[in-house]
Amino acid sequence: MKLYELVGRNKEKGFSPYVWRTKMAIAHKGLEAETIPLTFTEIKDAVDFAGSKTVPVLVDGDHKVKDSWDIACYLEEVYPDQPSLFGGSIGKGQAKLLNFQIVKSLLMPLFRVLVADIHDILDEDDQAYFCLTREPRIGCSIEEARNTYRPALELFQENLWPYIQCLKTQKFFSGEAPAYSDYILYGMFQWSRIVSTKNIINQDDLLFEWRTRMDQLYDGLGGKVGLIN
Amino acid sequence: MKLYELVGRNKEKGFSPYVWRTKMAIAHKGLEAETIPLTFTEIKDAVDFAGSKTVPVLVDGDHKVKDSWDIACYLEEVYPDQPSLFGGSIGKGQAKLLNFQIVKSLLMPLFRVLVADIHDILDEDDQAYFCLTREPRIGCSIEEARNTYRPALELFQENLWPYIQCLKTQKFFSGEAPAYSDYILYGMFQWSRIVSTKNIINQDDLLFEWRTRMDQLYDGLGGKVGLIN
Repeated sequence: MKLYELVGRNKEKGFSPYVWRTKMAIAHKGLEAETIPLTFTEIKDAVDFAGSKTVPVLVDGDHKVKDSWDIACYLEEVYPDQPSLFGGSIGKGQAKLLNFQIVKSLLMPLFRVLVADIHDILDEDDQAYFCLTREPRIGCSIEEARNTYRPALELFQENLWPYIQCLKTQKFFSGEAPAYSDYILYGMFQWSRIVSTKNIINQDDLLFEWRTRMDQLYDGLGGKVGLIN
Repeated sequence: MKLYELVGRNKEKGFSPYVWRTKMAIAHKGLEAETIPLTFTEIKDAVDFAGSKTVPVLVDGDHKVKDSWDIACYLEEVYPDQPSLFGGSIGKGQAKLLNFQIVKSLLMPLFRVLVADIHDILDEDDQAYFCLTREPRIGCSIEEARNTYRPALELFQENLWPYIQCLKTQKFFSGEAPAYSDYILYGMFQWSRIVSTKNIINQDDLLFEWRTRMDQLYDGLGGKVGLIN
């Protein structure tokens, strides 16, 4: 298997929240993939062969699959004898809902928090591209965003409330063992910790304990990445 | 089975969003329960036998179960050969998460929208009790709330975004067939339509179509209730 992923100057440390979902899903299935690191400006040409403009893209033999959700569904279908990512059709339906639930409530405010940190880990070509495409999206310059992230961080942390509540009675968002809904959320936290030194969750928080459990899965796949800067 | 539920002046039309989850879950399991209607001020004494201060309370033979989530878990455990509410441990974990996800994003703003309508369908004793207990919670009088619900409705409708997105590719929140996560959301919409004539979802919306499908389940259990006023 080959997995195309997004990197900054450091080619070892992919930071896309969506690619992290896929990395964890591949490991959950007991599989391994060679990663192909790409910068933002390299992605378009590099994954055009799969009809995609974004990563992750997974190549598995003759199969080319784009989009993290479609890759999860592909893995579940093609490797049914390996541990399940969704636990059946009800779990799959609910995971798809979660896929959308975190977009505006968590991913968008967190992007606003991290945008300057992401900028700083990119190579020069990517920095120019990133400013050009992302500044209209956030409605200000990267430099202005650097010092005005607090309200977005507060909103993000407020919106973590249901996730913290949930962990009071269960170890993972998928119940007693991790599955795809945990990878959806873990990808977001990996994104943050790899591009930024900002602490977005408190150490005495149930979410922190959950992330530590997630870090230890699959030979410490997520935990051993460390901070990029 | 006996199910204790919350009513206003009309004893036929229980309106609690949590009781509606339980009604749908009982029907999903192919079971039937006699409903015991209670007003707000009757509840405390009536369900004290089950160690509860709220409804739903389910009595099933010797078992007394309180709290809608615990009742769903009870039904799933005690009637394992009937259709599953969660589809296994992953689905159950995720349904518990949804249980919390809708509290602040949907139930609380919708309560602000409906509070005066709820007041109006209660009997006199309950109206006094309701004002006394709920006005501090909303930070204004019921009469003030009656004319200032629009911002809360807008917030509620904005927060429906992920649910509408999800229905673009699947019929139910639990996938291709309804299960407990659908009942969590359906209970909320039943609450609204039974106490209020306000249209909180647009007729040309995927959520409207989903609700219509939900209305038709189990001999039209939810759909045949109609509006209370």
